[in-house]
Amino acid sequence: MNIIVEKYGGTSVASIDRIKAVAQRVIQTHDKGNQVVVVVSAMGKTTDRLKRLVNKINSKPGERELGMLLSTGEIVSSSLLAMAIQSMGKKAIALNGAQSGISTDSTYANARIKKIDTSRIKNHLLQNEIVVVAGFQGQTGDEVTVLGRGGSDASAIALACALKAKYCHIFSDVKGVFTADPRLIKNSVLLQGISYEEMIELAASGSQVMMGRAVEIARKYGLKIKVSSSFENSSGTLITGENELEQVVITGIALNKDVAMVDIFGASGGDIDVAKMLGEITKNRINIILMSSHRNIDNTTNFSMIVKPENVDLIIKLLDKFSTNCKIEKYEINNNVAQISLVGSGIADNYGVAYQIFGTLSKNNIQILLTSTSEIKISAIVLRDQAVHAVEKLHETFEMNNLERNLIGGGNGKN
Amino acid sequence: MNIIVEKYGGTSVASIDRIKAVAQRVIQTHDKGNQVVVVVSAMGKTTDRLKRLVNKINSKPGERELGMLLSTGEIVSSSLLAMAIQSMGKKAIALNGAQSGISTDSTYANARIKKIDTSRIKNHLLQNEIVVVAGFQGQTGDEVTVLGRGGSDASAIALACALKAKYCHIFSDVKGVFTADPRLIKNSVLLQGISYEEMIELAASGSQVMMGRAVEIARKYGLKIKVSSSFENSSGTLITGENELEQVVITGIALNKDVAMVDIFGASGGDIDVAKMLGEITKNRINIILMSSHRNIDNTTNFSMIVKPENVDLIIKLLDKFSTNCKIEKYEINNNVAQISLVGSGIADNYGVAYQIFGTLSKNNIQILLTSTSEIKISAIVLRDQAVHAVEKLHETFEMNNLERNLIGGGNGKN
Repeated sequence: MNIIVEKYGGTSVASIDRIKAVAQRVIQTHDKGNQVVVVVSAMGKTTDRLKRLVNKINSKPGERELGMLLSTGEIVSSSLLAMAIQSMGKKAIALNGAQSGISTDSTYANARIKKIDTSRIKNHLLQNEIVVVAGFQGQTGDEVTVLGRGGSDASAIALACALKAKYCHIFSDVKGVFTADPRLIKNSVLLQGISYEEMIELAASGSQVMMGRAVEIARKYGLKIKVSSSFENSSGTLITGENELEQVVITGIALNKDVAMVDIFGASGGDIDVAKMLGEITKNRINIILMSSHRNIDNTTNFSMIVKPENVDLIIKLLDKFSTNCKIEKYEINNNVAQISLVGSGIADNYGVAYQIFGTLSKNNIQILLTSTSEIKISAIVLRDQAVHAVEKLHETFEMNNLERNLIGGGNGKN
Repeated sequence: MNIIVEKYGGTSVASIDRIKAVAQRVIQTHDKGNQVVVVVSAMGKTTDRLKRLVNKINSKPGERELGMLLSTGEIVSSSLLAMAIQSMGKKAIALNGAQSGISTDSTYANARIKKIDTSRIKNHLLQNEIVVVAGFQGQTGDEVTVLGRGGSDASAIALACALKAKYCHIFSDVKGVFTADPRLIKNSVLLQGISYEEMIELAASGSQVMMGRAVEIARKYGLKIKVSSSFENSSGTLITGENELEQVVITGIALNKDVAMVDIFGASGGDIDVAKMLGEITKNRINIILMSSHRNIDNTTNFSMIVKPENVDLIIKLLDKFSTNCKIEKYEINNNVAQISLVGSGIADNYGVAYQIFGTLSKNNIQILLTSTSEIKISAIVLRDQAVHAVEKLHETFEMNNLERNLIGGGNGKN
């Protein structure tokens, strides 16, 4: 018998009526002869509400107490969903993180899954019970931990891998993965398939559909992921290995407005000092989203970093401290930028892509402040108020509204 | 060093500001050189809100899932209180039922405490931490259980006994134990002291101040309980052994409007059949609050039971089923009654009390439908719309507004 893991996000369980609708969906999957494990997020905006309470009490709460507090949202939704399934005449059991056998490291409020003991879940499945797991949480020793933002995806994917599920179905309020954010780009198209690598790059570049971390786990175990909306019946997007997908040059465009640019000019002291500076920044847990540097004629270095806006103050402090050892001519902060990322497994093999990007943007008077490339991604930093226009034009250039090219096995990889 | 257990009810932690106020109170106790364990209820009406959600989903929810769900309210309040204490510069740790070492039986949603392993709490106390325990919950094996309505009192008292605390201080929104409900009787007086036995009888008779079960545990271990309001500084009421209190005839009057009366007339078949009928009723977990029976001249039996109104339907069903074996002439249900109980350790020694009660009520045209007495309690069933008037008059008769008689060591037990 196949095991299927279904995960429902906060909006999918935001009310009693929605929980009942989820119960019906879950029972449908069960009635088709599958063993079903359901992972749920907290109802609606519960987690945000709890965090607001915390902010009013303690700006630096103990991580341990924070984890304990935040774990309650998913316990509530999983208990209620199990009751809803029971009321429809099926056997169901709700399990919290510890009862699900999910062990994590000890970073209480931002933990990573270390090990899953599936014995209890398997026992319940054998007794024909639908197992409802409180997502986003685990345990370390006797302590409750939570997995960090979006961690219910990680719970679902990791459980699906450990249970050798046929696939993991992620239900949320979006239809699936699009070529670009459908709220911004009218012509954006729902992708029927996308590779793990492409999805990870899209997630890292601001696509909200799935956490990159969860997709990484799935890639490691070769677990197929379906992403679709719980509010309608559509096939959604399949995330799977590259070899199962037709290659297209550009799969999707992501836009991330939540960035700031730090430009450092004329750093003397050579690469060793630059490395020290970067070391200092990462030691302070600042995630550098994107970076580029080049050497000037006078042997000083200029470099630019893209970071989260909330890290800017700390970076300024570190630069001021650092400049006592290493002369920096000046630095500038630009808070009015956005990052556009084009992702596709064909990028590395197609040198024309960068040319097309620069061409499209310059033709439309959009200045590129910074670029960076990887195997399957090209990012460009532009002024924030030009960003949506830039995405629209790039979407046109790469004919991403052409549905056919996005069908698995039906595209021809033109461009 | 003395260990003090403080328990705060739902209204005392109903908002962020109130949680901060509780944190300050707790720190005051700690600053006086005590080791402090705090037990909290869920914030405000959280538990009721969760129960309403359940009712919309499943009228007969699984007990296991219900316990899991209801346990979250106290986890939230305990985590937040620990964070509030931490923000004031003190060390604090929040513990859920399992982490507090509280083991219960397996009645998931109405469990009883079986054993407390205090080793973890003691460890934290030794490290000068204020321990904040989520009330109302425990564990059985790997499963989460809750203690039933008002169970946070039981958590606090049981922990205080197990920790050999100096006393357990119950904070709520009432000033303490009064001679009668102060919302009904203007002249009611705050008792400075009351014996365990009297408090248990008052609780069983509808006084909302404390759960009788919790007081029973305290009596068993000789633990002193202080009851006072968290919203003002007053000494409240001390619940302790009888020998530490001055005896008065009547300590308090309780009124319970949440009752119904079942009158059964002309049951033939003798005492064995009556016993069978009672057996059937208690097997169905119906709590008979009060009962009286007498034999008629024709050798049939009449008897009356006082029960909770929600049990009436089931009782009718059982009586109908039962009457196939044992002839019952007729039965009547009266939903418009109330129970008045006078409690005092002097009752058994003072035969005048019953006389005074009957005299007072008949003089005021209040009909007594049923009475029942125990060592320290006399209950009377009257029509519900006459009940408050009856309490007022009894309060006058026994001069319960005479403050002096209620002072510990200051009263003279007149009447």
